[in-house]
Amino acid sequence: MLTILPRVEAPFILVNFKAYAEGSGGNAIKLAKIAEEASLQTGVCIGVAVQPTDIAPVAQQVSIPVFAEHIDPIKPGSYTGHVLPEAVKEAGAIGTLINHSERRLVLADIEKAVLRAREVDLFTVVCANTAAVSSAVAALKPDSVAIEPPELIGTGIPVSRAKPEVVVETVELIHKVNPDVMILCGAGITKGDDVAAALRLGTEGIVVASGVVQAKDPKAALLDLAQAAVQV
Amino acid sequence: MLTILPRVEAPFILVNFKAYAEGSGGNAIKLAKIAEEASLQTGVCIGVAVQPTDIAPVAQQVSIPVFAEHIDPIKPGSYTGHVLPEAVKEAGAIGTLINHSERRLVLADIEKAVLRAREVDLFTVVCANTAAVSSAVAALKPDSVAIEPPELIGTGIPVSRAKPEVVVETVELIHKVNPDVMILCGAGITKGDDVAAALRLGTEGIVVASGVVQAKDPKAALLDLAQAAVQV
Amino acid sequence: MLTILPRVEAPFILVNFKAYAEGSGGNAIKLAKIAEEASLQTGVCIGVAVQPTDIAPVAQQVSIPVFAEHIDPIKPGSYTGHVLPEAVKEAGAIGTLINHSERRLVLADIEKAVLRAREVDLFTVVCANTAAVSSAVAALKPDSVAIEPPELIGTGIPVSRAKPEVVVETVELIHKVNPDVMILCGAGITKGDDVAAALRLGTEGIVVASGVVQAKDPKAALLDLAQAAVQV
Amino acid sequence: MLTILPRVEAPFILVNFKAYAEGSGGNAIKLAKIAEEASLQTGVCIGVAVQPTDIAPVAQQVSIPVFAEHIDPIKPGSYTGHVLPEAVKEAGAIGTLINHSERRLVLADIEKAVLRAREVDLFTVVCANTAAVSSAVAALKPDSVAIEPPELIGTGIPVSRAKPEVVVETVELIHKVNPDVMILCGAGITKGDDVAAALRLGTEGIVVASGVVQAKDPKAALLDLAQAAVQV
Repeated sequence: MLTILPRVEAPFILVNFKAYAEGSGGNAIKLAKIAEEASLQTGVCIGVAVQPTDIAPVAQQVSIPVFAEHIDPIKPGSYTGHVLPEAVKEAGAIGTLINHSERRLVLADIEKAVLRAREVDLFTVVCANTAAVSSAVAALKPDSVAIEPPELIGTGIPVSRAKPEVVVETVELIHKVNPDVMILCGAGITKGDDVAAALRLGTEGIVVASGVVQAKDPKAALLDLAQAAVQV
Repeated sequence: MLTILPRVEAPFILVNFKAYAEGSGGNAIKLAKIAEEASLQTGVCIGVAVQPTDIAPVAQQVSIPVFAEHIDPIKPGSYTGHVLPEAVKEAGAIGTLINHSERRLVLADIEKAVLRAREVDLFTVVCANTAAVSSAVAALKPDSVAIEPPELIGTGIPVSRAKPEVVVETVELIHKVNPDVMILCGAGITKGDDVAAALRLGTEGIVVASGVVQAKDPKAALLDLAQAAVQV
Repeated sequence: MLTILPRVEAPFILVNFKAYAEGSGGNAIKLAKIAEEASLQTGVCIGVAVQPTDIAPVAQQVSIPVFAEHIDPIKPGSYTGHVLPEAVKEAGAIGTLINHSERRLVLADIEKAVLRAREVDLFTVVCANTAAVSSAVAALKPDSVAIEPPELIGTGIPVSRAKPEVVVETVELIHKVNPDVMILCGAGITKGDDVAAALRLGTEGIVVASGVVQAKDPKAALLDLAQAAVQV
Repeated sequence: MLTILPRVEAPFILVNFKAYAEGSGGNAIKLAKIAEEASLQTGVCIGVAVQPTDIAPVAQQVSIPVFAEHIDPIKPGSYTGHVLPEAVKEAGAIGTLINHSERRLVLADIEKAVLRAREVDLFTVVCANTAAVSSAVAALKPDSVAIEPPELIGTGIPVSRAKPEVVVETVELIHKVNPDVMILCGAGITKGDDVAAALRLGTEGIVVASGVVQAKDPKAALLDLAQAAVQV
């Protein structure tokens, strides 16, 4: 049992396991341990976002930040098949993604999810697809906003290099609305250079999925990302 | 580790923990153990449907059937925030609810979820709100159909007594379409008499939620239900 | 004003205008008139499914069956932004598509929409993507079921020729559940041969969209389809 | 045919006909004419938001602003059962509600709908349920934001009086993010005093539904609202 919960610190690398076979069940535990090793080796804060079924098994095995991939904006009650913030927390997560492009919420529910997460002390990373949507999200006062242009997800073409102006504009718009929010960027990131580019554009970290989870050598891929983060 | 997976057998009592605080996290484990005791004591098959975060912790502690409350109709892949059938199975569930009135699916996805569940060997209980919808669901060949008029859920007024004709019609319509499917009924069930009434109307079991999960004495409530099931 | 409403009769050709520019606004009226001419010329019943904004303008100009593309399963009331069955009827539609693959409903809402349509006397064509889903839909007693494998929509590859066994199985399964429902098939139909094939496999008509709406010569395309329907 | 399109001007009263029987079909035309009379009589800009089936019939009969109750964030194409911005415009609407609490959108689609509306020159009123959500919406640069706490809708308890601090906070937060957007407020408004209170709190108009549409004397109700708007 952890007595001190791991915290999110910049520069932050969040590895989204999605529903990949390589990041599911027993594989999720293995991959989380690899992330933990890379974090210890580089000193960079690396978190893992896992399926709800894997939160408890993974959180029991590693001391890095474990995230849910989604929470529902509900209180305990009559909500069959939902993901309860309290349950996510009790299972060992310290944060959650909200509104990922593969699990979008109606706007009012994003606010409710952020508020519910705050009540149970979960760190919130709310995803957004454009600069304007990112600033809209920032107005809801999450802990972090992740800009991820969906057209780049899974392409290996990083937003930080394909559309640097989108990242710059996002950072500008977000800071006007809410200067306190941590800004992450994602979509298409596979290499250390992509991370360095993202950080130089004013973000404080990245979200990565297939670039690590489906890499031939996830440890090497993560070390490459984390070492670049240190050097910026 | 279980080597022999628990099986669903008639008469079957499925306790849906929903997102109740009393059925979440550590409470889910306690309540599942109570269900296991009641099952051993009466010889009636009692299953528990739990939140995704609780499947692994609960399945490690009990030898009764553990169900998911929902699965998404997906294969492993890029589906952030979804519930993957393979992950549910690996976490220790042997079955799943599908299309509960609090987590409805579009029709095409119900078929996909049933097919995916079959591929990973999960027992399917597909919920339906009316007799006609129950027979529609039966055409998709799940293992079981649960008729639950949503207007009775949580009321303490059992469908088997408030609307016995709905249960009778449901059984008739389902048998025309698919004579092999197990028929359960739910909504408003709290007492042994309700179970007995449901079984006499031609069903093979029941789904219960608040009647057990939020009972003052869940063990007594479950024993009452299970003993009635044996006596029919 | 129509005094006698047009009726759906087999063989039936339903042209789905979707949200195509060629089938929207003034173009919707032109295309509906072309459909009317083709119907008069061949004696085949041809209907048009149009956007809600175009129902009244189109229905005022033609005497063929006008369909809505969707209705919501609601009664008059506090439902901003919904499509009310009564309003669709009053605007001049005599029928409606329900559950098109581009506008899917949760299962319970399909039944409600069918019931609401019956209350206001709208002919229902409920869409389904597979044989099993078609038979599920048939259990809800709509006037018609349209089998449309979504993977063939817009391809020009007709289900009646690419997957004749799907159509045969659909007809068989539907007839077991409900022998009274009209069976249509759609997806990929562009030529008279496709219609002839569909009717020979046991259907009573077809649903066509881009094959007519985006044809270089919609009149010629429709005449080809309708003439084939007569000759079977 | 109108050659000069009616424009939205402050103070603005938007009457949402929802799917009420009293605001549907022939009744929609009658009620829109009443709104037009009240507008002419008081000099206050009064718009009507009507069901998609009623846009063309209503817009042909009145010279006040006609709004859609919803648009989908789509371009012309293969979108059966959707509401196309171009079609709404061609039918005669000059604006549209977006994200009403009875027709919520995922956040990314709100931005897309606002952008699509701008492309076809529709005035956008985006609805929001709280002060923070209102400021989030303002970041997407619609023409107008309408704050409507859903718990007050249809109650006859106006937000401007039950929760004046919500309106004040909304105006403040919106102005920080986007000083150019028109701010409306709604929910529970039935009397002139409610309108006056709303305007004094810094809004430029109101959205009203049952307070007019289901009033015994809609003309008197609207005159009461409009006269109060003039006097502030």
